[in-house]
Amino acid sequence: MRYHVGGELVPADEASVSVSDRGFRYGDAGFETLRAYGGTVFRWDDHAERLARTLDALGFDDRPDARDLRERVRETLAANDLEDAYVRVSVTRGAQSGKLSPGPADPTVVVVTKPLPRGGTVGEDVWDAPATARVVETRRVPSEALPSHAKTHNYLNGVLARLELDGEDEALLRDTAGNLAEGATSNVFWVRDGVLHTPALDDVLPGITRRVVRELAADLDVPLETGTYDLDALRGADEAFLTNTTWEVRPVRRVGDTAIGGGPVTDRLADAFDERVEAAHY
Amino acid sequence: MRYHVGGELVPADEASVSVSDRGFRYGDAGFETLRAYGGTVFRWDDHAERLARTLDALGFDDRPDARDLRERVRETLAANDLEDAYVRVSVTRGAQSGKLSPGPADPTVVVVTKPLPRGGTVGEDVWDAPATARVVETRRVPSEALPSHAKTHNYLNGVLARLELDGEDEALLRDTAGNLAEGATSNVFWVRDGVLHTPALDDVLPGITRRVVRELAADLDVPLETGTYDLDALRGADEAFLTNTTWEVRPVRRVGDTAIGGGPVTDRLADAFDERVEAAHY
Repeated sequence: MRYHVGGELVPADEASVSVSDRGFRYGDAGFETLRAYGGTVFRWDDHAERLARTLDALGFDDRPDARDLRERVRETLAANDLEDAYVRVSVTRGAQSGKLSPGPADPTVVVVTKPLPRGGTVGEDVWDAPATARVVETRRVPSEALPSHAKTHNYLNGVLARLELDGEDEALLRDTAGNLAEGATSNVFWVRDGVLHTPALDDVLPGITRRVVRELAADLDVPLETGTYDLDALRGADEAFLTNTTWEVRPVRRVGDTAIGGGPVTDRLADAFDERVEAAHY
Repeated sequence: MRYHVGGELVPADEASVSVSDRGFRYGDAGFETLRAYGGTVFRWDDHAERLARTLDALGFDDRPDARDLRERVRETLAANDLEDAYVRVSVTRGAQSGKLSPGPADPTVVVVTKPLPRGGTVGEDVWDAPATARVVETRRVPSEALPSHAKTHNYLNGVLARLELDGEDEALLRDTAGNLAEGATSNVFWVRDGVLHTPALDDVLPGITRRVVRELAADLDVPLETGTYDLDALRGADEAFLTNTTWEVRPVRRVGDTAIGGGPVTDRLADAFDERVEAAHY
């Protein structure tokens, strides 16, 4: 495997960043997780736009443009002869003197990749079974402390949430007020009386798959409500699923001891998602 | 300059960590900032203990022992022929597969250093003048989201706070309830009517210099009060100062437009701190 680091393709086991890079020192970096299907990165423009917003939120005065990043992703996939893949693109503020106050951004771009199943209507899912989840005690970092729309290398909040699990697949975090926010690496949706629900954007990461699912719900005339919800809203749901770039649409079998599962609405959205994937790369 | 990375001394410009290291991917690492005076690391045991608590909070099931870390620090100082120095010791969870949920810790230890003025009673301060500070809008990450006693590579909260500054030296953060917490890289103290005050530990990093200042206040019979304080408590102070390992005890000239300055209590504590430094290394 070869990774793309600072403009060069290098063997994965030699791919490294300086210990003076702020991406290492402070997690001072934004990133995106992408998925390529048949050689095409799904919803590239959305990912590129979110990454740009992340780097703006971090005050980067300079950042690589979307076309440049896309080319590095293309080169990385080509170098590894990969068409169906996971890709992670990181942009750090660069190596600087050892002061917390940042100097002008001198971005380091890192692209790593690994093979994934093909997906779409004829491929397989990345996961073997519906997800199990647990509501953890670790609370999501509030937007006043770190903007919730920024996807950064400061990911310990999610790591601590995952460490609370007892074998489940995903940790669900509440905000500091106790309302349901999101999974450590996913957004959460549920269906009740035919209405799809998901927490509003104020305190969750604006997932790209979340956005696609909202578009699909509109296409399929599935009513959608966003708002602020406590845990009972989820526990009393008829169906529930998690979304992220890797899992796509993954039903939730149970949350803690409460069985939920997928269902007809989840299935329709998951099938429609697979069709979007096919449409995007052929 | 040579740095200590993964057990080896390497030239600073070649010192790097794998892009698969969780310290890079997620900021999944703890660190300490140390100061060596005349070749002796000041309050090593306190720093080693805090680092161990940080790594415990992050759920590291394995971590280098304090003696091993101290030896790496010693080797780094010796390799660079440094006696008076800044030292940063980081311990990451190591390079792992690309999953957020961590596997067993396989720590990467990184030690970097740079020269600093000698300090103590006969040396000079690192800073040229008393600090200017500003209370920023970015709020400190609450302990429910990340334990406040953990000093980690998730430092974007402090970076964002510093980015709000307009030339001041330090950003002061409030907690989400609006109470004064700490500086981006410092603890804050102030004196009012002869009583020294500092925010209680619940939502601030337990600074080693903060601890030493508390000991010195007890030695000097300066009454100390800790608690929850709003901004007016600081703005109405007779004296104020910031503490951290690098700055030691640094008077605060102004907070926003409010002039404060050091004074007799600050001076006594700063002098006593310098004497501690001398006592520690001779």
